[in-house]
Amino acid sequence: MSTAITTDLAAYAVQARFADLPDAVRREARRSLLNIVGCVLGGARHAGVDAAHAALAPFTGAASATLMGRGDKSDPLHAALINGLASSVYSFDDTHEQAVVHPSGPVAAPALALAEIHPVSGETLLLAFALGVELECRLCKSLTVPPAKGSLAWSGTGITGPLGAAIAAGRMLGFDMPTMRTAMGIALAQSAGFRAMHGSLCTPMMAAQASQTGLRAAFLARAGFTSSPAALEGRYGYLSVFSESPDLDALAGDLGSRWEILRNTYKPYPCGIVIHPIIDACLHLRADHAADAIAAVDIQASPGTMALCNNRNPKDELQAHVSLHHWAAVCFIRGTARIEDMDTETAVRDPALMAFQDKVQATLDPALSSDAAVVTIRMHDGSHHTCRIDHCIGSAQRPMTDDELAAKFAAMATPVLGAGRTQGLLELCRGVETLADAGDLARAAA
Amino acid sequence: MSTAITTDLAAYAVQARFADLPDAVRREARRSLLNIVGCVLGGARHAGVDAAHAALAPFTGAASATLMGRGDKSDPLHAALINGLASSVYSFDDTHEQAVVHPSGPVAAPALALAEIHPVSGETLLLAFALGVELECRLCKSLTVPPAKGSLAWSGTGITGPLGAAIAAGRMLGFDMPTMRTAMGIALAQSAGFRAMHGSLCTPMMAAQASQTGLRAAFLARAGFTSSPAALEGRYGYLSVFSESPDLDALAGDLGSRWEILRNTYKPYPCGIVIHPIIDACLHLRADHAADAIAAVDIQASPGTMALCNNRNPKDELQAHVSLHHWAAVCFIRGTARIEDMDTETAVRDPALMAFQDKVQATLDPALSSDAAVVTIRMHDGSHHTCRIDHCIGSAQRPMTDDELAAKFAAMATPVLGAGRTQGLLELCRGVETLADAGDLARAAA
Repeated sequence: MSTAITTDLAAYAVQARFADLPDAVRREARRSLLNIVGCVLGGARHAGVDAAHAALAPFTGAASATLMGRGDKSDPLHAALINGLASSVYSFDDTHEQAVVHPSGPVAAPALALAEIHPVSGETLLLAFALGVELECRLCKSLTVPPAKGSLAWSGTGITGPLGAAIAAGRMLGFDMPTMRTAMGIALAQSAGFRAMHGSLCTPMMAAQASQTGLRAAFLARAGFTSSPAALEGRYGYLSVFSESPDLDALAGDLGSRWEILRNTYKPYPCGIVIHPIIDACLHLRADHAADAIAAVDIQASPGTMALCNNRNPKDELQAHVSLHHWAAVCFIRGTARIEDMDTETAVRDPALMAFQDKVQATLDPALSSDAAVVTIRMHDGSHHTCRIDHCIGSAQRPMTDDELAAKFAAMATPVLGAGRTQGLLELCRGVETLADAGDLARAAA
Repeated sequence: MSTAITTDLAAYAVQARFADLPDAVRREARRSLLNIVGCVLGGARHAGVDAAHAALAPFTGAASATLMGRGDKSDPLHAALINGLASSVYSFDDTHEQAVVHPSGPVAAPALALAEIHPVSGETLLLAFALGVELECRLCKSLTVPPAKGSLAWSGTGITGPLGAAIAAGRMLGFDMPTMRTAMGIALAQSAGFRAMHGSLCTPMMAAQASQTGLRAAFLARAGFTSSPAALEGRYGYLSVFSESPDLDALAGDLGSRWEILRNTYKPYPCGIVIHPIIDACLHLRADHAADAIAAVDIQASPGTMALCNNRNPKDELQAHVSLHHWAAVCFIRGTARIEDMDTETAVRDPALMAFQDKVQATLDPALSSDAAVVTIRMHDGSHHTCRIDHCIGSAQRPMTDDELAAKFAAMATPVLGAGRTQGLLELCRGVETLADAGDLARAAA
């Protein structure tokens, strides 16, 4: 590994061939793409997506790219923004096992929009998507995952998504190394986002912004715009501002042989992923114990869970995304953990759910990993019952099966497309690398 | 001062009245606006602006806002981007005396674009502009100027410009406090940029990006998008990621009585401001000493100068912006320091200028402020001569006069507009608060 990391990564991104992707990588790329297309459709009609589209549509250009699930088209930069926003608005997307990044939205949204104005094969799309996700995950890992040291305050998706988007777009546009490196630099220089925004629409906007920023960076680079050739490693560069001590090997070591995309995981529940082991445990306990028999729910939670989701009494859906108390209440009262269980009117303000949260208490167990939790219910009769989850459903150790992913996809897409078109789109995603024109995928999700 | 700083600043931004602005503040706001309009026109036909426009024009919306100096219109978000880029592309804009931020471009570009689709009076425009610049400068000061501690690696303009833009746009749109606070939060969450980009078009793009980001944030807030109400001070918020130890009093103390806009300064030379005292000294020495009699040029430079501009042998115009060696050579060989003195072909690659740089050596003097320098020339005859500049022309202690600003404006605008229209636009800027429709100003700069 040289010290010219930006150049090394750009060279890799333009040289890697589809034939070089191991079967497992192709499979995980397909699963990631399928999952995120479902998430875009599931979020397409969210009020926050409506608001962003209404705000910006007056300033958009010629309609050439699909606003998936909205029955409309726009210019590809706006489509990247809106589809990126929809992909993330329910926090139902995907997460790298180690780095807290939701990688697929900021790569898929611009890649699919670009495919409609710049036709490429399905194989090219899937390769570009896999490379974008791979380098986005590597970058995020290099910032904060030990031995790296960095601040959890940054939004991993916000600050690494633009790189993934630029790489996917640049690869689809057939960039040479210098142009790819320029696009990467432009995207890195515009990377932004911090976690104080959790609970507001600015959090899914980080995926949206990343989608658009990276695609725009590719358009700028193609037109001759310039950037630093050492955007990552240069003095006063990206790595210096976003990490106290970046892990360069995690970023640029073993390119083509170590695959971070294999560590991508998919959310079975539409909320902050660090709440998921608590949901697993609560649903398990609820099977045998009625909510009204419970006096208290004591939760031992991981450091990540406590830092991000120890938020009692959310006021609306977006705050509920990151409230472990809300979801514990949902599990015990309703026995479910679905999108409709965080609707502001019918769930977040449901008096029964609000009241139950008073029984829920979370404490830190520093030894727990972020996919683990221990939930103990103390009953009115004096008994207590404990469920320990070491690896929640959807984690790298207990990955969602293809069938579970298909069911999740169908649950999100069917209300928008109907059963027949949903099944057709599912097949397109599963066979994406056989498509002659990858734009068919976005158009089928109109 | 409360701990709800985002709320306090939003409340101030919506409540301040034009009648509350002291005369000196109105005057400095007019001078800032006049200077930056000149800079936009001076940069309007730069190849980097052409490249950005060519890259993105295919995706722009209905033409309603002027691309100043380009004889064209576009949608207001693209106009904010392109005019913001032009304002900064020659590094000829303005700088706060203490915080290294170039405040006016990211505020004027969106404000003028917005004025064309949302008519306001000149008084409203000038008030909105003054408030945007003021809060942008306060924010930048709060991050790095002692007693604050923060990293110089961040681009002050990139990370604080979006706030200034959002505040100006929100004020012009007549926002109430909560909507203004939301717009500020969206803009803060999308703030980005670091200094490794110096020497590339990504540096002026930071002003451009800030212009567009802030205006877009206002449009999103108007449509009901949401943000954290504590974007600045919240846990994992803006202040926590951009400063090790922010100075909250610099940010939010004495609103309406202390005015940072009075510390704005204007560049007499089109290059990094920390080179300016060196140029003053070199031009002074050059008046009495011919270049070919000089054996060596020894420069004692401030920490800021050494950190940002100790760059010998730039390769192109953008690198020349931040090369003290280039400008020392220009001063001694040509006796000038103009835009044409950094043209890539006729100046940066001029063999005489390149050769002279070998004689130039800079060393750090930690005691020098960034507007100070000491230049000693050692002659072939063994004699030596020293010029010490304590405060360079254009610094807060030696501000450019109104006549000097008018001459700078004319030098930039005349090649684009001709002498007659240049004079007319100058008068519009000088009397901006008397305009019934502030959009006249942008249209007069078409």
